[in-house]
Amino acid sequence: MAGQGWFFSFEGIDGVGKTTLIKKLMDFFKEKNYPAVYVREPGGTLISEKIRELLLDIKNTGILPKTEYLLYAAARMQLVQEIIMPSLEQGHMVLADRYTDSSLAYQGYGRGIEREFLNNINDHCSMGFSPQLTFLLDMDPEEAYKRKKEEGPDRVEQMGLEFQKKVREGYLDLAAQNPERIIVINAGGELTEVEAQVKSCIIKYIKRHSA
Amino acid sequence: MAGQGWFFSFEGIDGVGKTTLIKKLMDFFKEKNYPAVYVREPGGTLISEKIRELLLDIKNTGILPKTEYLLYAAARMQLVQEIIMPSLEQGHMVLADRYTDSSLAYQGYGRGIEREFLNNINDHCSMGFSPQLTFLLDMDPEEAYKRKKEEGPDRVEQMGLEFQKKVREGYLDLAAQNPERIIVINAGGELTEVEAQVKSCIIKYIKRHSA
Repeated sequence: MAGQGWFFSFEGIDGVGKTTLIKKLMDFFKEKNYPAVYVREPGGTLISEKIRELLLDIKNTGILPKTEYLLYAAARMQLVQEIIMPSLEQGHMVLADRYTDSSLAYQGYGRGIEREFLNNINDHCSMGFSPQLTFLLDMDPEEAYKRKKEEGPDRVEQMGLEFQKKVREGYLDLAAQNPERIIVINAGGELTEVEAQVKSCIIKYIKRHSA
Repeated sequence: MAGQGWFFSFEGIDGVGKTTLIKKLMDFFKEKNYPAVYVREPGGTLISEKIRELLLDIKNTGILPKTEYLLYAAARMQLVQEIIMPSLEQGHMVLADRYTDSSLAYQGYGRGIEREFLNNINDHCSMGFSPQLTFLLDMDPEEAYKRKKEEGPDRVEQMGLEFQKKVREGYLDLAAQNPERIIVINAGGELTEVEAQVKSCIIKYIKRHSA
């Protein structure tokens, strides 16, 4: 369910280029005068950005997995109600830089929190607003790690390569479980190629589902 | 379940004197060389205190009820694992300035969040550690409001008298539902009287339940 709008999310481990890709797509839709809204998790609202600071602060190393997850959930709850829901209800397009699949991949597969606990809270926080399509940008974690390293890691990225590998496996598992919604994109290639592929999927989807 | 220790929580609307009372009790147990730990919600750990700042910051007025609740839950999750659980397992006494009943009274009765959602997350966050006794300091909200007003309100207290009335009714409801655990104390009287009453309940409870 996505109101009258279009809801697409972008997932993948750190460093695969989600944010860069979405910026390109935003430019594209802006050029076409198509109302598109960019949201990122955690963040996107005053309170959610404060939660983001807390989560990514490298000093907060004592944070426990379920505490971390509940903070992500709180940030999402606010984002859905303040931005995603009203945007979709106005018929806009929402491009989400991470959404519920991130919780399952990072907190579930990565940190070992029970799926049922995550699903229960995810369902509440998303209030029934699920992406129509999810693009999983997939890449060898070592490749992604190299790309990202130049920027210096935040607390989450600091978890290291082994963790990113578990998260990637989790994402691929989720894609296998949701073949109709999650499209796996090889993000190892040129950005222009990735961009063209995603754009084409979105346009086809909208054409097929427009009245 | 409270490990080998003693777990007592203190509840009530803002301004009834929970914190002052617990300080008195802490002094008393310290004098007796009885290991007691004071925890407050939200707060009590590095990360939970940061969440507290966020929650009580008067500027964060846009925060939605479920976001607020998830932040409280995150703070509790960390507090239970970092402080409450290890203290109880070492056989210490834990005196908690607010615990899961606060969620039910404030977020449930006060803000109207469904009980099932709250119970589900509360159960997870408390990890099975429930107070053996809960002291509900009860007072007419107008009285409590006057006491508190001198300090200047934080964001939660700012909600006003009508909200505090709903919360108080909620607390009394919870006490009726849990007569074995929740002891309603008239907090309108002298502090020394309140203190004597609570102290006597605690001592009796420990005597009765010690091997």
